[in-house]
Amino acid sequence: MKLYDLELSGNCYKVRLFAALANIELEIVPVDFLAGEHKGAAMLALNPFGEIPILVHGEVVLRDAQAILVYLARLHDLESWLPSEPQQMAEVQQWLATAANEIQHGPNAARLVDKFGYELDKPTTLVTSARILGLLNDHLTEHDWLALGHPTIADCAVMPYVAIAPEGGIALDDYPNVLAWIDRIKQLPGFIGMPGQV
Amino acid sequence: MKLYDLELSGNCYKVRLFAALANIELEIVPVDFLAGEHKGAAMLALNPFGEIPILVHGEVVLRDAQAILVYLARLHDLESWLPSEPQQMAEVQQWLATAANEIQHGPNAARLVDKFGYELDKPTTLVTSARILGLLNDHLTEHDWLALGHPTIADCAVMPYVAIAPEGGIALDDYPNVLAWIDRIKQLPGFIGMPGQV
Repeated sequence: MKLYDLELSGNCYKVRLFAALANIELEIVPVDFLAGEHKGAAMLALNPFGEIPILVHGEVVLRDAQAILVYLARLHDLESWLPSEPQQMAEVQQWLATAANEIQHGPNAARLVDKFGYELDKPTTLVTSARILGLLNDHLTEHDWLALGHPTIADCAVMPYVAIAPEGGIALDDYPNVLAWIDRIKQLPGFIGMPGQV
Repeated sequence: MKLYDLELSGNCYKVRLFAALANIELEIVPVDFLAGEHKGAAMLALNPFGEIPILVHGEVVLRDAQAILVYLARLHDLESWLPSEPQQMAEVQQWLATAANEIQHGPNAARLVDKFGYELDKPTTLVTSARILGLLNDHLTEHDWLALGHPTIADCAVMPYVAIAPEGGIALDDYPNVLAWIDRIKQLPGFIGMPGQV
């Protein structure tokens, strides 16, 4: 099972992190992001969106980190990480949407500006970040994990860009419950980190 | 099963559309969006994000249209709309992420500016829209449906804000495959529309 990967990508790290926690073996294929390899013909044939991560498993080719997390969890029947029961699956799903929406356009986008020079509207990314970090911090007042009272792929999808938010100029000091949650994830057996993580 | 709803919300329409197509009965609870009811204490108790749709089914309370689609499909064991097989589930999931990411921040955001006066960066929404509409149009050159060769909740999640993109100043004439796909959805038994739809 091949993961087309960039070490500095939080989206790629979502998959590496979950695979490490769930003891799933991945063959890491580094992509030369700075040279634009992800926009080249070979990669576009795998993912027309021109983005990584991409997972290739036999004839299965998947884009989008959240979709890859769903695939890996269901493929290995990891009920604890993504239950098949409807309510529990949907409770995890809510946070996958948050990862693709508010986290992507908040802390991820802010970091893209500061670290990679993307021409995005930085003030908007900071407003989006403050809102979602506040919501996360409030949620984590009464919950140790995002969903279901235990670690799920929701935590793997949301945490990566939150934990590297300072690389986008966003301090996490005002969000103590978020920091405590990141620390809980770090204590999970098999945890691996990524560069820049708090 | 109650859906807290706004007729003019494409996110609410995702749920109404799927329920109509899949013959699922919903009790529609209109929310006075213009008066800010979704930001009031009663609604925030159901969804701290201050957004609709919200689905309430007994003790189940769900935010996020995509999560609600997943819940309804799995609750009713609608394998055709959301398969439980890992690869097929993940192929649908890719497009749920697209709905929460590019569609939300492209055509949805552009319409929020034009129709509801949101102070978002309109040029950025247009760039995001052009990219995702081009990708959709290319994908639909060789596919009649977004995933699996037949209608799924992916179509219900992605189509709504695409079909009302002109309300955000985005013409769809350059995307003939997208228009043909919208027409195919309109031909499905049980289809219902929403105001402003092409």
